[in-house]
Parts: sequence; structure tokens; C-alpha cells
Amino acid sequence: MRSLFHMPLDPQSRKIRLILAEKGLTARLVVTPPWDGHEDLARANPAMSVPVLIDEPPTGGEIAVAPDAVIAEYLEEAYAKPALMPATSAGRAEARRLAAWFDIKFEADVNAPLLRQRVDARLQGRRDKDPDAIRRGLDALAWHLDYASWLLEQRSWLAGDKLTIADLAAAAHLSASDYLGIVPWTEFPEARAWYQKMKSRPSMRPLLADRLDGLAPSAHYADPDF
Amino acid sequence: MRSLFHMPLDPQSRKIRLILAEKGLTARLVVTPPWDGHEDLARANPAMSVPVLIDEPPTGGEIAVAPDAVIAEYLEEAYAKPALMPATSAGRAEARRLAAWFDIKFEADVNAPLLRQRVDARLQGRRDKDPDAIRRGLDALAWHLDYASWLLEQRSWLAGDKLTIADLAAAAHLSASDYLGIVPWTEFPEARAWYQKMKSRPSMRPLLADRLDGLAPSAHYADPDF
Repeated sequence: MRSLFHMPLDPQSRKIRLILAEKGLTARLVVTPPWDGHEDLARANPAMSVPVLIDEPPTGGEIAVAPDAVIAEYLEEAYAKPALMPATSAGRAEARRLAAWFDIKFEADVNAPLLRQRVDARLQGRRDKDPDAIRRGLDALAWHLDYASWLLEQRSWLAGDKLTIADLAAAAHLSASDYLGIVPWTEFPEARAWYQKMKSRPSMRPLLADRLDGLAPSAHYADPDF
Repeated sequence: MRSLFHMPLDPQSRKIRLILAEKGLTARLVVTPPWDGHEDLARANPAMSVPVLIDEPPTGGEIAVAPDAVIAEYLEEAYAKPALMPATSAGRAEARRLAAWFDIKFEADVNAPLLRQRVDARLQGRRDKDPDAIRRGLDALAWHLDYASWLLEQRSWLAGDKLTIADLAAAAHLSASDYLGIVPWTEFPEARAWYQKMKSRPSMRPLLADRLDGLAPSAHYADPDF
């Protein structure tokens, strides 16, 4: 059966869960802390990162796919419908640019200093909070919401007039930040309206049901009308 | 005319130069330090990173494409021949995995602490060498060469029996490290034989002719029979 090695609050893992759900594909979710040096993970992905998709493609056999951006391309090629990328070259470049924006830039600016410090450090029993890094992360979060709002003033979805991997990457990252209750939604009405729309999609439901032992989500985390 | 905003020793920029050359595409190269806050760069890529490809696709108009992994996908779609990815899903996943391996993991483990400290810090007039980071970077470089050698014991090229974006990403990163003379080639004969083969390709020639003001390359940098 199709499996996904993942971590519940890892944004890149969440993006792949969203892509699978939007394409109507099911997968067994296997919680796999990358720092545990798990043998199955090492065999499937020598880079020792999650997510890793173990797929049984329609053409037969078994295939291990990683990292997240490669899984996204693989799923779009192997399971074309519904398409999560536009049909034109320019449209695809824009959807991929914005997915990478969240997976690389939002990750480095916001989720690395905030989410990973809170969640991963906690799971590993570390405590190395850096107040300056937290302040810079929160400033960056506001700047990213401002950029998303600017895009959403011109477009129904982040990369154009249809839902794409850009929206799924953004929702994956922002939903993880939102678990911590650090997203200033009220200051960014366009981004908030877009996230309300995202939250009401069936693909988001399993993510909004995630709960971490000993770390409760923000009060509005699962509420589509926050 | 097609343009590439790049930095000569930036590995991701080098990868795109190699892909363009392998596909027989020419581009005007525009040296663009990302830390200068250049207006053309901000307009073409709000993430303010290089490389950025400004293309005039066969279908008309002008398009700005970034970051590097998105440019690679764009070029493979817009200029399919010669193909730099295998035809099968599994083959494409493996070529993309290894390209990402160098662009994400080799970059973080080796080129961020070694190359970027030496080259970018120098260009920006900074001096912040960290001896521990340098030692860890060199250890990681040997580990990566070991992994590449293991792959090349089983395959003619990194991702299989044909040249792919994996080889171009690896050559882009290793050629930048090799400019500094830090690659212990003699200890890794398989990796060395592969790099000799790469160096003799016409696509590599412009990279091997790059010279940085005030920082001479290693003696064997441009020599295919090093």
C-alpha cells in the first residue's frame, strides 16, 4: 500500500498530504522523526529527511520518492487529474515559483526559527530558544502575509485563477504556523479570506485534526470561521 | 534576447548555465550580486536570489523564471530535446532526487560553509571564517564524494545510464568547490573519472574559463586530465 513517511507538523510533509488528498489518493501515514536514524527512512531516502513517498505506481513495482518538491512533480506526472499545476509554461513556472517561495523562503524566514524551534527542539528534548531569532521570525511572517495579500488582491488563488501547488504549499506552511497561534490574521484580510477558503476544503480536514502530545493548538486552529 | 542573472561561482547558477549549454541554448549572462538589491532582480524575482532566467519562449512574450529548480523544470518542458531527464517516472524521480541532493544537501553541508564563506563574504567585504564550520564542511565533502563514488560503481552516470540534471547539478557544485582546490579527488577514483568525463564536455568550458578578481583557481581547475 502507498505510504508516506512524515511528521505531523512538518510543513513539507503537510504539503504532500494535501496534494495526495486533492488528487483523491490515500496513503498510510508513518510518523518518522528524521533525527531517530530510522533504517526504513535511510533505505528510502539516504538524505534522511521527511517526507518520503513510497508509491506503487500504476505501471507496477514500488518506488521511493523524495524530497518534497520531487514528490510533487512525481505525483503531477503519475496522477495527472485533477491537475494541480496550470497548463501553460508561464503558469507552471509561477505555481512552482510560489510553492518554492514557501518551501524555501517562508521555511527559512519563519518556520525554521519559530516552528522548528518550538516543535522539533521539544520532541528532541532540546531547549535553545533565541529571542532575537523569534522576533525576526515574527517580522518575516508579517512580511510574507503582506506579500500573499498583495498577490491575492489580483488573483483568486495564489498563482492565478485556479488552486495549484502554490496554495497547497502556502496552506501547509501557514497551517503549521497557525497551530502555534502566531499568525496575525486580522491584520491581513485577503490572506485570511484565502485561508478560510482553504480550511473548508476536505483535503485540509486531516491536518486540522492533528494534535501534538503536550502542545495544544491555538483556539481557532481547526475553526474554518476563525 | 534570453538572459540569465547569475553569479559566476554560484553553483545553482552554474547548473542552469550547464543545462542551457547542453540544450544548445544561448543566453546573455548578467552578473547580479543578490545582496546589492538590484531593481531588475527584484522585479524578476522578489525572492532576490540568483539564478533568474529571462526567457523569450517559442510561444511568444517574455517570462522570468526562478529559483533554479523551477528553471530546470521550465527548460525541460519548453525545450524538450535533448532530454536531460529520463523518460520513466522512476528515472525522473531519481534524477530529480540527486539534483536536489546536490542543490540542497551538498549546498548546506559543503558549499554554504566553505564556498560562500570564501567567495560571497569576500565580495561583500566580510570576514567571518569559522574554523569548526570549515572542518565540518571538509568532512562532509569527503562523505559526499564517497556517496557519489558508490553510485558511480553501479552506474555510468549519477542517476543511471545517461547524463541527466543530476550530473549537471553535481558538476555545478563540485566545479565551484574545485575552484577553491578543496576537493580530494585522488581519494575517490570513480568520482574523479566521472568529473574528468564531465570536464571534457563543451558545456563545461565556459565555467572552467571563469576567473574571480583576486582569487585564483586551483592549479588543475581547468585541466580535464587533472
